[in-house]
Amino acid sequence: MTQQKPVISAAEVAKHNTRESCWIIVHGHAYDVTEFLDDHPGGSKIILKYGGKDATEEYDPIHPPDAITSNLPPEKHLGPVDPSTVKEAPKELTAEQKQREERSRFKPPLDECLNLHDFEAVAKATLPDKAWAYYSSAADDEITHRDNRAAFQRIWFRPRILRDVTRVDWSTMILGHKSSMPVYITATALGKLGHPDGELNLTRAAGKHGVIQMIPTLASCSFDEIIDAGVQDQVFFMQLYVNKDRAKTKKIVQHAEKRGVKALFITVDAPQLGRREKDMRMKFEDVGAAVQAKSDDKVDRNQGAARAISSFIDPGLSWNDIPWFRSITKMPIILKGVQCWEDAVLAAEAGCDGIVLSNHGGRQLDTTRSGIEILPEVVDELRKRGLFPNPKFSIFVDGGVRRATDVLKAVALGATAVGVGRAFIYAFSAYGQEGVEKAVNILNDEFEMNMRLIGARNISEVVPSLVDTSSLSLHVTTVPEDRLYRGNYEAMRGAAVREIVKSKL
Amino acid sequence: MTQQKPVISAAEVAKHNTRESCWIIVHGHAYDVTEFLDDHPGGSKIILKYGGKDATEEYDPIHPPDAITSNLPPEKHLGPVDPSTVKEAPKELTAEQKQREERSRFKPPLDECLNLHDFEAVAKATLPDKAWAYYSSAADDEITHRDNRAAFQRIWFRPRILRDVTRVDWSTMILGHKSSMPVYITATALGKLGHPDGELNLTRAAGKHGVIQMIPTLASCSFDEIIDAGVQDQVFFMQLYVNKDRAKTKKIVQHAEKRGVKALFITVDAPQLGRREKDMRMKFEDVGAAVQAKSDDKVDRNQGAARAISSFIDPGLSWNDIPWFRSITKMPIILKGVQCWEDAVLAAEAGCDGIVLSNHGGRQLDTTRSGIEILPEVVDELRKRGLFPNPKFSIFVDGGVRRATDVLKAVALGATAVGVGRAFIYAFSAYGQEGVEKAVNILNDEFEMNMRLIGARNISEVVPSLVDTSSLSLHVTTVPEDRLYRGNYEAMRGAAVREIVKSKL
Amino acid sequence: MTQQKPVISAAEVAKHNTRESCWIIVHGHAYDVTEFLDDHPGGSKIILKYGGKDATEEYDPIHPPDAITSNLPPEKHLGPVDPSTVKEAPKELTAEQKQREERSRFKPPLDECLNLHDFEAVAKATLPDKAWAYYSSAADDEITHRDNRAAFQRIWFRPRILRDVTRVDWSTMILGHKSSMPVYITATALGKLGHPDGELNLTRAAGKHGVIQMIPTLASCSFDEIIDAGVQDQVFFMQLYVNKDRAKTKKIVQHAEKRGVKALFITVDAPQLGRREKDMRMKFEDVGAAVQAKSDDKVDRNQGAARAISSFIDPGLSWNDIPWFRSITKMPIILKGVQCWEDAVLAAEAGCDGIVLSNHGGRQLDTTRSGIEILPEVVDELRKRGLFPNPKFSIFVDGGVRRATDVLKAVALGATAVGVGRAFIYAFSAYGQEGVEKAVNILNDEFEMNMRLIGARNISEVVPSLVDTSSLSLHVTTVPEDRLYRGNYEAMRGAAVREIVKSKL
Amino acid sequence: MTQQKPVISAAEVAKHNTRESCWIIVHGHAYDVTEFLDDHPGGSKIILKYGGKDATEEYDPIHPPDAITSNLPPEKHLGPVDPSTVKEAPKELTAEQKQREERSRFKPPLDECLNLHDFEAVAKATLPDKAWAYYSSAADDEITHRDNRAAFQRIWFRPRILRDVTRVDWSTMILGHKSSMPVYITATALGKLGHPDGELNLTRAAGKHGVIQMIPTLASCSFDEIIDAGVQDQVFFMQLYVNKDRAKTKKIVQHAEKRGVKALFITVDAPQLGRREKDMRMKFEDVGAAVQAKSDDKVDRNQGAARAISSFIDPGLSWNDIPWFRSITKMPIILKGVQCWEDAVLAAEAGCDGIVLSNHGGRQLDTTRSGIEILPEVVDELRKRGLFPNPKFSIFVDGGVRRATDVLKAVALGATAVGVGRAFIYAFSAYGQEGVEKAVNILNDEFEMNMRLIGARNISEVVPSLVDTSSLSLHVTTVPEDRLYRGNYEAMRGAAVREIVKSKL
Repeated sequence: MTQQKPVISAAEVAKHNTRESCWIIVHGHAYDVTEFLDDHPGGSKIILKYGGKDATEEYDPIHPPDAITSNLPPEKHLGPVDPSTVKEAPKELTAEQKQREERSRFKPPLDECLNLHDFEAVAKATLPDKAWAYYSSAADDEITHRDNRAAFQRIWFRPRILRDVTRVDWSTMILGHKSSMPVYITATALGKLGHPDGELNLTRAAGKHGVIQMIPTLASCSFDEIIDAGVQDQVFFMQLYVNKDRAKTKKIVQHAEKRGVKALFITVDAPQLGRREKDMRMKFEDVGAAVQAKSDDKVDRNQGAARAISSFIDPGLSWNDIPWFRSITKMPIILKGVQCWEDAVLAAEAGCDGIVLSNHGGRQLDTTRSGIEILPEVVDELRKRGLFPNPKFSIFVDGGVRRATDVLKAVALGATAVGVGRAFIYAFSAYGQEGVEKAVNILNDEFEMNMRLIGARNISEVVPSLVDTSSLSLHVTTVPEDRLYRGNYEAMRGAAVREIVKSKL
Repeated sequence: MTQQKPVISAAEVAKHNTRESCWIIVHGHAYDVTEFLDDHPGGSKIILKYGGKDATEEYDPIHPPDAITSNLPPEKHLGPVDPSTVKEAPKELTAEQKQREERSRFKPPLDECLNLHDFEAVAKATLPDKAWAYYSSAADDEITHRDNRAAFQRIWFRPRILRDVTRVDWSTMILGHKSSMPVYITATALGKLGHPDGELNLTRAAGKHGVIQMIPTLASCSFDEIIDAGVQDQVFFMQLYVNKDRAKTKKIVQHAEKRGVKALFITVDAPQLGRREKDMRMKFEDVGAAVQAKSDDKVDRNQGAARAISSFIDPGLSWNDIPWFRSITKMPIILKGVQCWEDAVLAAEAGCDGIVLSNHGGRQLDTTRSGIEILPEVVDELRKRGLFPNPKFSIFVDGGVRRATDVLKAVALGATAVGVGRAFIYAFSAYGQEGVEKAVNILNDEFEMNMRLIGARNISEVVPSLVDTSSLSLHVTTVPEDRLYRGNYEAMRGAAVREIVKSKL
Repeated sequence: MTQQKPVISAAEVAKHNTRESCWIIVHGHAYDVTEFLDDHPGGSKIILKYGGKDATEEYDPIHPPDAITSNLPPEKHLGPVDPSTVKEAPKELTAEQKQREERSRFKPPLDECLNLHDFEAVAKATLPDKAWAYYSSAADDEITHRDNRAAFQRIWFRPRILRDVTRVDWSTMILGHKSSMPVYITATALGKLGHPDGELNLTRAAGKHGVIQMIPTLASCSFDEIIDAGVQDQVFFMQLYVNKDRAKTKKIVQHAEKRGVKALFITVDAPQLGRREKDMRMKFEDVGAAVQAKSDDKVDRNQGAARAISSFIDPGLSWNDIPWFRSITKMPIILKGVQCWEDAVLAAEAGCDGIVLSNHGGRQLDTTRSGIEILPEVVDELRKRGLFPNPKFSIFVDGGVRRATDVLKAVALGATAVGVGRAFIYAFSAYGQEGVEKAVNILNDEFEMNMRLIGARNISEVVPSLVDTSSLSLHVTTVPEDRLYRGNYEAMRGAAVREIVKSKL
Repeated sequence: MTQQKPVISAAEVAKHNTRESCWIIVHGHAYDVTEFLDDHPGGSKIILKYGGKDATEEYDPIHPPDAITSNLPPEKHLGPVDPSTVKEAPKELTAEQKQREERSRFKPPLDECLNLHDFEAVAKATLPDKAWAYYSSAADDEITHRDNRAAFQRIWFRPRILRDVTRVDWSTMILGHKSSMPVYITATALGKLGHPDGELNLTRAAGKHGVIQMIPTLASCSFDEIIDAGVQDQVFFMQLYVNKDRAKTKKIVQHAEKRGVKALFITVDAPQLGRREKDMRMKFEDVGAAVQAKSDDKVDRNQGAARAISSFIDPGLSWNDIPWFRSITKMPIILKGVQCWEDAVLAAEAGCDGIVLSNHGGRQLDTTRSGIEILPEVVDELRKRGLFPNPKFSIFVDGGVRRATDVLKAVALGATAVGVGRAFIYAFSAYGQEGVEKAVNILNDEFEMNMRLIGARNISEVVPSLVDTSSLSLHVTTVPEDRLYRGNYEAMRGAAVREIVKSKL
């Protein structure tokens, strides 16, 4: 790559802007991608748009830095482009983009963020439309997505008093590894859409605060970049989408194990990626993805981005594959995306090391129940079969977590730890690594307070009798409004400052 | 009709604009309707309004093309009108109509429709007021109408993982006939209000995509037009309102059977058509109706349109009539509009071939339960009596269906297939036949995705344990708001971009 | 009264405008009320306001015409006032009043009223503030008032099909008297606030349509005026507030019986009239009341109007009084305001002829349950004791009725008939007697339709299995909104007409 | 303090405005606080802000008058400041403050307050932002705070009729002391934020109306000031936050007992004060607190006000401390903040004299249940163990009370009395002592009315069968809205005054 190629002028590159001859500039080097056009997992159209131009800004969020060099044969690396010849493309910002940039400059200082919701509020105001749509969207009518949050509010505390809570400790062990809290950073895709450092924001904050990060298959940063950003002995888990080509999967898994990853979370709720209509409406070209970008699949992207990304994922994955995973790795194997007790039992019987009760953040099947909702029935049925409690089989939950109280509810009901995804994305999208650290600190503050208030001195004291789940499974819709009656009903008014004055104010 | 009558000038026609002598122009021909005035099912008033004028535009949506020629004796067919003499009536559009037309020109391209709701949104924006009111209205306070939709959201999935879902197939057999999905197009009236081709849009799309259409008694297009528009071996069902004059009913049924219709769905929830107040408020003159328009009933229309239309329907229809239907046709007989298990059992015992659990789209009795809600109790009670499962007795459901997930819930609970009505009407109202095809394609996309996500490879794997119906029968209203308290409560605010900036934006 | 007194000039009257000498003009005659000031049930203040002036307009809505002549000794009847000398007080309308008057002129024609809600909408727009506040207000936070309506929507139909419903008949017998529907006009106070003819609007419409009217103790019109306005054999019931002075009550009851009233409904839910804050906020001077206005109680009105009116009502009324009522009248005795099964059983055991399950339209105790909600438990407990069904003991329900479906639900659950109050008040407030007749016609239309749709040919076929009450007793409040989360959640948007166009429209 | 110090000029004071030499003026005297800066419980920053200036206005609401004189050694009391030299700091009011002051001048006259909500409405409009934020805020998402109110509305009455309710008496005995109603004024902090007389408003009104006041640890007024403001034999309770330094606690308790306080309510739900985000967002410097201000704790206030205030509270308080409390006082000991039946049983077994079922007004742990909700289960479990009813063990409830009906529900379910906090704060914030008296009068009015309406003549007749609690424990969230469907659904419209006119109005 550095084999002294001659410097090229941007004007020369500019001539190659057709399907017949297509050059692009990435990170100051020119590449001939003419023959690669049809092999691009994101389709040829998006490349042609940048034919003869500098594509770095579009390329960066959704590819690892070395994707282009490792996918193109050396002879297509044309060499450095004379920077003095590259004209900055006059960026025409839309009114919406201008507003976002201005809002971004005036965003609240980090210490005004008092809870995890606040990061989302700031991210929503300042993220580019496409990034917001990608991160925030969920399947169909997003009912499950929102019920993930609402379900926690159908669980109420039964706190205990007059225990000496001078010292409270909410650290715990997750799959044999110390964690400063019963929370891990769960896998979410395309981190660079939100921040130029992408997932590394999470890695650095996690390392500093003793939190475990789960590395996503579809990260913007490459797997090795993430590992390399870790501190000494930092604990990582890995999330895996299983490739139809098991050889690729094997390579990825074994590489991860070699680099020290401590557990393998196999996603089982996504034989195909969901239809996320907000995202589709944005015409978001959710192209490429880091880890798998090395593949040379040819895919038809006419059917939409999500389906394109999912093309390498094997919908044929089945229980029969579990022994094979056992054979290629010694890492604990956890199934991510279990949604009923029957499959939880099967997972335990299949010798898995745990499960994540998850519906993929509401991004896959709509009107499926939340992880926290099925936790009690999963625990009950495992217990009946002598499979719970069980040091060899851990239960995790994700979806909708925003408060330490949410985490404590899950732990009380039998979860080892809880995955938090979007909240951390929003934290770094708005404030980078510092945002993630602040989010961790907020959780710590909330844990200290709430451990004391429920009367639990350590995680082992966070027990089922601390919560009331009697309303957890109520999926109520209200009788549709009697609009004519309501239209006639005149709402009560209370005492008020005199109208005369009000109108003057 | 083509017996060389002399050409008439529009000026001549214009002279006959009174009850004493009333001529009208339809499709370029003049007709003397003076003696027909009192026999018109829609009343004389609406005809007199067009006396001496061209009535085609008013006539078309609510009559089959041959209604006028077959209802008038040949001597009243006065012959062609000289087109050069017909002055285009200066159409004065209301402000509302102008807005609709403009919106219509700028409606979103078809590929922006991502789900079945979208067609409704476009139709609502672009349909004439009267058509929208007729299609969208329902009985009384429209509580049942809306609960039809809400009921699906009280059913939640219990999806299964790690089944090999590489290939998923959601085609099925309906009453012995292949259907590309467990969905049929159910009967809805007056299709030409939404689109000049009326029900033919459905027929053509259905033929192309292997979907079964149920032909409505009150179609805008004539029965034969619809059949004729079908492709080779296209499967049709027929919906029947039973006439007080059973001879007419017999003629219709036997004609349908002769033309190859495969099943007879007798509407049993409409001894009288419902009061639909939105429609009444529009003063919609919901006059005439295709199939029955050949009748010569004299009806008093002062009491409102719905009652007028229903005048031919026999409120005396009873269980005693079922053997008679058996005697006049070999088609399977299905009762459409069953709303409790008792009648489902009676239907099975009476030898019917199936039932549709339906409340007529909420257009008849308000605060009656939705079809999907009563499905579990119907299945339970039939099962107790050895009547379910039963290849000779099919259960269908309609009302409120918008997503493939809705359909899968019904199938899981025992339905053979689900009827979709309004969604397809809105699809062709907004985009004609293409709209219907797109709607079918969207459903196919959703089926593929959701079959995989629930872990079912074919319809036989869509079983009851895939759904949780524990909240299905909850008809909750919330305690009326404590307005004084709420008025005082100050909602939480999160971190926000500084106000100063906001006001500048 | 007509004993030829000399004509007086208004100027002469005007001199007597003090507590020392106070004359007023009513219906063209002058009266010296100086000595009556302290005896006026409505307090002296309101009289003094009209001292020396014409008080007719204020007097009329809340007194029977003969109240002044029968309360003052003949020597205080000063004689006719020369009309030419009476200057019309220049009425200064407030902006609000002007708006109401204008709205009143443009109110929708009667045939645009399609349901009982519509009368309320028109009345709300056109009634004087004070009248609207008095009629529409209820106790405390008006939670019971609104739940009266909502409770009906927690009952859902289980309609039956294929019964010959050619003829349907919803007439019934109420306490041995024919009624054209299972509805009676229940007692409500101060009818002249809404319309100059007050309760007579109800009487005339009821007589014409075979509906039974219950005459209220606190009517604006006198008892005899109402009876006199009835047609031959018109059936009346009477509602009774029991006076501390039983002699007065006895006189009223026996007079009613003599005039042919068929049943006595004793109000038992109002030992004191409720605090109705909307009404209090209006500073509504809810003074006087017809039937009891003949009393000479001195009351302190500083505590508010409702308490003042209720001053004659005996809070000491108890079960021990029932035999006394039996001893003074042969009319059936019904207790109006029973709110739990225990009291229903006591009423039956005490030999009463029936009960009204009622909470006084939500105007007395807030967060008490609605009549329709307790009906099933009342029927169950009576049945257990062999007291239901029982031709000698009728159960009535009132509160929140707006649709024939509401009535049919009550009848299905065991009620003989249902009382409708406010809906009829609003009907005559907006349109006089014609409004009441229209309201009755609307109910008849709805009854015909809905009897057919539930499959009942007559009232005896309206049975419990036609309704599902499983959710009736759910008093649900939703978990308070998670405002930060909701603030961040971005609602889904569907396909839409292009924004560019929208803004142009 | 009055030892004739020389008069100082304000100019002299003004020179001492640095950390090196810091003087302030309070109540007309100068003090040298240089050495006290680091000992100030509220931090040095807030003092330095007033260095060299008159700090009285800031000092007053949050310190007892003698705090400064008793915390500083006599030599730091510099003597009186010449008032003629003190320049009134030109107060710059923010726009918000100006609006509040103007609103304050035009607030509704007291007799327009018809219920307890009204005081809150007026206080909200007229209180300074910081005071409103401090009083109204609660923990996290304030879900428990609001559910405290909502829970009362899940309890419905079953009122009884025909009992002679001529005389009704709602007075009761609380811990052996007469109370004019089953309500006491519960402890709330920092009363001077709302009104210059702070808690004394409560004391004076309570004394006048026979209501018991619970004196808060964190009152703005000193304990003795409050006691001194009482009338002869006025009954007080005391609320206690237990200090890490038990000697201080002992001194406070024994002083209280000596001054005649009748019961000790030990707060057990606040080992640490809650995070109240509304308050935090206000950057409210919730510094200092009366009773404990004599401590010389050094605290780091960087973590926020609530945590700072709570620094003296002992999170190590446990069941083991109860015997010690017994040993230092003969006052009855009541645990305030019990939230499940298990702790209620423990409290009874530990020999406590009662409990308050309370979640601290929703200010501590969010999504914990309300006191009224757990009351039935507490009573049941105590009864099972023979601990209820029990003259030696009283149950109290607080949180969300606004109406006498709320109180009666709690009493019916077994509570001796109910604590009201915020409502009384708002009453004096808006109207001083008169406001509190009016609030008491309103409650009395409501009690009289509602005792009659439920058919109870005295508190002993307020029994469990008067209420229906079947829905009390339902914590329902509704299925998230189906936004696309709702967006398309067109709400019903009723009859309306013609638009033409409307637009003219």
